[in-house]
Amino acid sequence: MDIAEESLELHRQWGGKIATQPTMELETRHDLACAYTPGVAEPCKVIAQDPEAVYDYTAKANTVAVVTDGSAVLGLGNIGPRAALPVMEGKAVLFKRFGDVNAVPICLDTQDTEEIIQACINLAPAFGGINLEDISAPRCFEIEARLNDALDIPVFHDDQHGTAIVVLSGIINALRLTGRSPQDSRVVVNGAGSAGIAIAKLLVRYGFEDVVLCDIDGIISSTSTTINEAQRAMLECTNPRDIHGTLADALKDADIVIGVSAPGVISPAMISSMKKDPIVFAMANPVPEIFPDEALAAGARVVGTGRSDFPNQVNNVIAFPGIFKGALEARAERITEPMKLAAAQALADLVSPEELSEDFIMPDPFDPRIADAVAQAVRQCATQPGEVTA
Amino acid sequence: MDIAEESLELHRQWGGKIATQPTMELETRHDLACAYTPGVAEPCKVIAQDPEAVYDYTAKANTVAVVTDGSAVLGLGNIGPRAALPVMEGKAVLFKRFGDVNAVPICLDTQDTEEIIQACINLAPAFGGINLEDISAPRCFEIEARLNDALDIPVFHDDQHGTAIVVLSGIINALRLTGRSPQDSRVVVNGAGSAGIAIAKLLVRYGFEDVVLCDIDGIISSTSTTINEAQRAMLECTNPRDIHGTLADALKDADIVIGVSAPGVISPAMISSMKKDPIVFAMANPVPEIFPDEALAAGARVVGTGRSDFPNQVNNVIAFPGIFKGALEARAERITEPMKLAAAQALADLVSPEELSEDFIMPDPFDPRIADAVAQAVRQCATQPGEVTA
Repeated sequence: MDIAEESLELHRQWGGKIATQPTMELETRHDLACAYTPGVAEPCKVIAQDPEAVYDYTAKANTVAVVTDGSAVLGLGNIGPRAALPVMEGKAVLFKRFGDVNAVPICLDTQDTEEIIQACINLAPAFGGINLEDISAPRCFEIEARLNDALDIPVFHDDQHGTAIVVLSGIINALRLTGRSPQDSRVVVNGAGSAGIAIAKLLVRYGFEDVVLCDIDGIISSTSTTINEAQRAMLECTNPRDIHGTLADALKDADIVIGVSAPGVISPAMISSMKKDPIVFAMANPVPEIFPDEALAAGARVVGTGRSDFPNQVNNVIAFPGIFKGALEARAERITEPMKLAAAQALADLVSPEELSEDFIMPDPFDPRIADAVAQAVRQCATQPGEVTA
Repeated sequence: MDIAEESLELHRQWGGKIATQPTMELETRHDLACAYTPGVAEPCKVIAQDPEAVYDYTAKANTVAVVTDGSAVLGLGNIGPRAALPVMEGKAVLFKRFGDVNAVPICLDTQDTEEIIQACINLAPAFGGINLEDISAPRCFEIEARLNDALDIPVFHDDQHGTAIVVLSGIINALRLTGRSPQDSRVVVNGAGSAGIAIAKLLVRYGFEDVVLCDIDGIISSTSTTINEAQRAMLECTNPRDIHGTLADALKDADIVIGVSAPGVISPAMISSMKKDPIVFAMANPVPEIFPDEALAAGARVVGTGRSDFPNQVNNVIAFPGIFKGALEARAERITEPMKLAAAQALADLVSPEELSEDFIMPDPFDPRIADAVAQAVRQCATQPGEVTA
């Protein structure tokens, strides 16, 4: 039985991957009177007097909504909110298992930007944070930005920032391994959707000065005519040499390539045209931009993919549970850029100098130290003034 | 320590009464691959092909949203969505504990009817049903009706129908005890908000032919000038003699009075003016319309209240978990009038002829047979054509 068949059969057996569970016993009338009427009136009255008390007397402080509209699910595309539910339940399971954060799948029956924003605003009171998931670009940018402005709880689009944080953590260690500095390294990001744009932004924040973003039509430059507003805005911080041309043109003499694009679009010849010992993240799923063996044969020094069956899996699960855990513990109103950088650094630092190798640049998802290390990094930033996620 | 202090302290310790819990172990990369990527793509694809399959591969089939806008919470009034959260969490706990139904508190940050409707429609895909809670009249009527029209999952305002079902179950047994028939019994319902209207409607459905509804201005009749649209519509099925006057006028020669109104508004003299052996449900909380000892001294034969410290507590917890359990198991699109009547009958029948007494007309909430008995009654109706809840 392959993994697809096994997963389908298991999903039928599970009948839902996430359940709710009372945190207390309810065996007597007295228990009922404390957890429900008449006793429950007391915390209600306290919160009515002091809205912040909702964090002390309810699950809000440790519960996030995992919100999607089903418009960009995995590699499956726009399959809608119902078909997206197994992914959102999976995400909710990972939140609990890895971060001890309660998470509730919310699959919205609308793909209208304004309705999504309104729905999130309206359901916010019971949640301590909102994890946006699998919402297509460019709508996801406006939705996240507007919600962060409107709400006093953190709103985080994991496809963007979770991916960017994990990629950066791997890049930090790949730089260590290959003796590079961000200032002297040229980066090409292929794929200018939500993940590609967020990765490019975070790399620039980290200190990379020469990041070139490519989409299906090639290098995004001042002469690009087919790009959207979000992609055009990226020209402010990317492509400083204003180069033009194809992905192959971009990769000549580049140090790092990060693919969040499509199967097979990076050839061995492109890898060979890069600087010596290039770093290659080929994250198209399930078929990467170039397979690791091909990339290594063409001269790559470090290769990451989105797959669990090769070394260096870029897996968001090492980031988002700890990020929300930290943000919730700090009652942060936003996930700021310093928090993201600190989370990436904390992840990178979990790989010791002795462990660090071409095949081990990011911690194993089951490393029990991860969530607390990330949470602590995020908490520390929350006490400092920060900038808005964007 | 009184119950209020104890409850507040417990709520602080619990830090939230409801948590999420994965239904499977997640200890290996293989577990991850089955519950999340890449395996999770398979149920997604199946649901994208056949939307009904969402019931087979996700928790939708056994998960309800407990939705409020915080406009009419307990006896506390319009305290808003944050202060309402402890009640919604309590409700979610009861759903799980008594019906084994997963329930998620949703506290909406709007009290606009259209926005509430839109929010519920948009969040429906991940839920098998919606329990509306503590939404003030008359908005609750339109919200429930419009949602039942718009959605293919049951939408049930528990303050209306749950209360009505439990009241009817008690009335059925009080009729048995006092040798009355519904056709020959006059009923007065004092309080014409959401609960009072729903109780009056269900009693008429059950077979009562002389139900008089009163509000703060007295009997609702053809000459009432201060009533809203929902109250006026009730004249179609209530007050067949078109009597006028005060609550005291209504109670003369009545067999049954049901108070869902305000503390102390029923006097012993009013009870004495009723037929012999009257049935009195005084459910204002925490201070009833008349205390049981006063009512009994004035001639009442059976007295129920909303309180756990007197016999015959009218407690919604004996109804809603089983009702949703049955509706979810049957994948019913509505909670119909026949389902409500069947649920009330099933509850009444759980009190055996030997047990039935003035102090025991409804089953104890901890009676383990309740949820399944109610669920079975609801399921059986679901296979028959029914009428819409209204």
